[in-house]
Amino acid sequence: MASLLRLPSLLSPSKPLLRRRLPAARLAAAAAYRGQASEAVGAAAPAAAETRGGDREGQVTPRSVDFNAWYTDVIAAAELADYGPVRGTMVIRPYGYAIWEAIQDYLNVKFKETGHSNMYFPQFIPYSFIEKEASHVEGFSPELALVTIGGGKELEEKLVVRPTSETIVNHMFTKWIQSYRDLPLMINQWANVTRWEMRTKPFIRTLEFLWQEGHTAHATLEEAEKEAMQMIDVYTKFAYEQAAIPVIPGRKSRVETFAGANRTYTIEAMMGDKKALQAGTSHNLGQNFSRAFGTQFMDENGQIEHVWQTSWAISTRFVGGIIMTHGDDAGLMLPPRIAPIQVIVVPIWKKGDEKATVLEAVDSVLKILKEAGIRVKVDDSELRTPGWKFNHYEMKGIPIRIEIGPRDVTNKSVVVSRRDVPGKQGKEFGVSMDPSILVNHIKGRLEDIQASLLHKAITFRDSNIIDVSSYGELKEAIAEGKWARGPWSASDADELKVKEETSATIRCYPFEQLEGTKKCFMTGNPAEEVAIFAKSY
Amino acid sequence: MASLLRLPSLLSPSKPLLRRRLPAARLAAAAAYRGQASEAVGAAAPAAAETRGGDREGQVTPRSVDFNAWYTDVIAAAELADYGPVRGTMVIRPYGYAIWEAIQDYLNVKFKETGHSNMYFPQFIPYSFIEKEASHVEGFSPELALVTIGGGKELEEKLVVRPTSETIVNHMFTKWIQSYRDLPLMINQWANVTRWEMRTKPFIRTLEFLWQEGHTAHATLEEAEKEAMQMIDVYTKFAYEQAAIPVIPGRKSRVETFAGANRTYTIEAMMGDKKALQAGTSHNLGQNFSRAFGTQFMDENGQIEHVWQTSWAISTRFVGGIIMTHGDDAGLMLPPRIAPIQVIVVPIWKKGDEKATVLEAVDSVLKILKEAGIRVKVDDSELRTPGWKFNHYEMKGIPIRIEIGPRDVTNKSVVVSRRDVPGKQGKEFGVSMDPSILVNHIKGRLEDIQASLLHKAITFRDSNIIDVSSYGELKEAIAEGKWARGPWSASDADELKVKEETSATIRCYPFEQLEGTKKCFMTGNPAEEVAIFAKSY
Repeated sequence: MASLLRLPSLLSPSKPLLRRRLPAARLAAAAAYRGQASEAVGAAAPAAAETRGGDREGQVTPRSVDFNAWYTDVIAAAELADYGPVRGTMVIRPYGYAIWEAIQDYLNVKFKETGHSNMYFPQFIPYSFIEKEASHVEGFSPELALVTIGGGKELEEKLVVRPTSETIVNHMFTKWIQSYRDLPLMINQWANVTRWEMRTKPFIRTLEFLWQEGHTAHATLEEAEKEAMQMIDVYTKFAYEQAAIPVIPGRKSRVETFAGANRTYTIEAMMGDKKALQAGTSHNLGQNFSRAFGTQFMDENGQIEHVWQTSWAISTRFVGGIIMTHGDDAGLMLPPRIAPIQVIVVPIWKKGDEKATVLEAVDSVLKILKEAGIRVKVDDSELRTPGWKFNHYEMKGIPIRIEIGPRDVTNKSVVVSRRDVPGKQGKEFGVSMDPSILVNHIKGRLEDIQASLLHKAITFRDSNIIDVSSYGELKEAIAEGKWARGPWSASDADELKVKEETSATIRCYPFEQLEGTKKCFMTGNPAEEVAIFAKSY
Repeated sequence: MASLLRLPSLLSPSKPLLRRRLPAARLAAAAAYRGQASEAVGAAAPAAAETRGGDREGQVTPRSVDFNAWYTDVIAAAELADYGPVRGTMVIRPYGYAIWEAIQDYLNVKFKETGHSNMYFPQFIPYSFIEKEASHVEGFSPELALVTIGGGKELEEKLVVRPTSETIVNHMFTKWIQSYRDLPLMINQWANVTRWEMRTKPFIRTLEFLWQEGHTAHATLEEAEKEAMQMIDVYTKFAYEQAAIPVIPGRKSRVETFAGANRTYTIEAMMGDKKALQAGTSHNLGQNFSRAFGTQFMDENGQIEHVWQTSWAISTRFVGGIIMTHGDDAGLMLPPRIAPIQVIVVPIWKKGDEKATVLEAVDSVLKILKEAGIRVKVDDSELRTPGWKFNHYEMKGIPIRIEIGPRDVTNKSVVVSRRDVPGKQGKEFGVSMDPSILVNHIKGRLEDIQASLLHKAITFRDSNIIDVSSYGELKEAIAEGKWARGPWSASDADELKVKEETSATIRCYPFEQLEGTKKCFMTGNPAEEVAIFAKSY
């Protein structure tokens, strides 16, 4: 009886079209996203796009059929985000925001442990500030949003809505830093930033997004370099250990370096469609901004020097990276460590007299898991069937589902299903309700899932990076949608030629390098390092 | 010897001018704030103001001499905030931001406990949205910042940088709400907002500020009313129990109601200069926005209805309220529950051979207090004298200072000083270093301080509210800078007349009312309620 109620046919992954039926409103939103992603219209053009896609009939596009459509469908169906009324803007819905909060909670602690304090800078920056650092203005001026009217009056000087805060940070640092005693100055802010992007994609590239930006000032180049490396290391650990994303940390090429930095370090992630995602960056800014803004200090010998600086950032784009790394046809799949809900408990009963005993058992399981620090939720709503709930929470990527029916209550056990292992294989019957056994079991499974997601992603990544020793081999690898890794010492012009001819860019010179001089695959000249080329978001 | 090193003369509150000597850079910032607060200039006019006030010679203005100057001096000297390059903007420095984080940490938990989820809406709102709700546009249009250029192009429709989010929230709610099953919808966002204010004051009124804004939609008026009341109650408890601010909760008059609300509830706080501060508000929006934006749902009987809504907010203004409620001539004074640092430990030694044993004792005290969950910091810097540190941490309002010198090490005890009780009276010698005794002692003192600050604020508040029964008495009370409380049932026009003639407004009809009909002090007509009138920030 209980197994009948569990609706095994609905759970079988062989019927995705049946399973993924969605309310019409959600689909309209998903279709609208796709509409939005593929065009660049005027400032505010919402209504028309919303009504499109009504012919999609309730499915989430299978990942293998159309990765981009799958991505936007999942975002709508899992209620992660919606799009705002202004073209290119995004509303982050509670479930998507909860993932961002999990990212914040982890990083915020790490930033403080490494000596940084949070603070807040105004988002309006005088236009003249942006012009002070030459390469900075060149990089950012095409994508600025400008406030020209305030309080009903035309402003004397246009205000930039911050695209990043180096300029205003340096303006303030110049006031606060006088002596070596004031260094290092290490701060971070959690904030919104605006970049007027023409081609947008939810989480990945939006007109406004949320991020943290760290900014530090040091007495020496060495200290700044150490800081820039430390922070890319914090990001790398976060990606591996929390998000189960096996990023490749490395250095950007000159062409790809941040506008205003001497060096940019990056973590590059391979998405499910094998495109690269720049998931976080850390910049050694040298003295570029301190010279532009006159940020100086008196050193221990009484000499006046310019400070050495870094900046580093991770944004809501990372949420998109999580979706595109782990998701499958059934929807989102969240690594347990950052899942807002780790365990969903679904009670199952048919006859009225079963309800009370089932709910009693559910309540006791809830209490046991909560006390053990597991993020658990019960869905005992009677408005939805268990089958609907199974699909719904799979779509939401919750790592573990616990089912409790009348037979389970009799046996004092529960059924445990893993989100990452489809069908019967991922299902364990008869797991004891005894508190210590249950807690150990669930904790163990959460760890298994965390490890398994990372392992799967590493295998996928490694099987899609091709070592190349000629430009022809690179072209072939890129044409297959893969990453190409090969010795590189050619010019910026050659790098831009590769981009033009293949759409691939240097994602990074990975930190992990084999020793010894190699031969540049483009020029045949000696090359100290290999570079990774790939198409990217 | 140890007592000599403690520099008692510097600690005596009788020499404020000597004690409050500050570095020149801080003073320039303080002076600049004052300059800024008293004028309204063009969009970005920072540099000139910065150099003023150089003749202030290192003191924080005594509170009794000039409350406003004292306020901005403390903000600069305690490094709470600085002002941004654009007129009216504020940089929240790490210590000021940490107080905001303490506010966030508490409220964020309470919001979740009461069923709200965090999310994020874009800050750019099409101008046409603002115009949809008649009283909303009337209230907000004079203070809007408008983006007119994006990505190098003039926009077809101007974008409003959000002054508040009711309009965009309703636009999205209309998409998400179809049925009674979708209700209640209860969300919150932590965000920056922009209001083009002409007269600004750090924390209290700035062009951009940080806040949380809750937004909810319900099936019935009763539910919405209950929610609006619940949230003003959350704010009231926070103010009393965490910030030790004895706010008066009540209902705003029609004239003072939020632009777009049917009812506005408020918590009103009395600052140290007796002016009122509106410290948080909660609005019953009725169906005003749901009618303007067509936010409808199908109820259980299949009827289509407009949703009933609320919104509620607390902002960084509350930090200003904390400063102006508890601060004194020595600077900031923080209630222990929201103090980023509750205990500062200052080691004292003179001879080199004393250093090691003192620092060892300091380290053990640090560990003991940390393990007990007390927020404690050690300042063992050798760049500053103990006397400098005493002043510095008093200025920063840290509730308890522990001093440990060679004699204390010998006696296995420490010296404990309360920030809120000046001089010898607030100082306890010979407090045992025994872990359980020390922890109990410090925890007890923190509770004492918390209670004492609230008690002091209540006494101050109650001694400065005058019950009036005629307009003459009100004028007298207001002229003395006090609050006037009296029966009121007069017209909006009368209310505006009072404002014009006395600068006082109705702060609220307090929830706490004596029963029975009274006589309106203005008209002599029957009045159901008393109202509180006061000058306000």
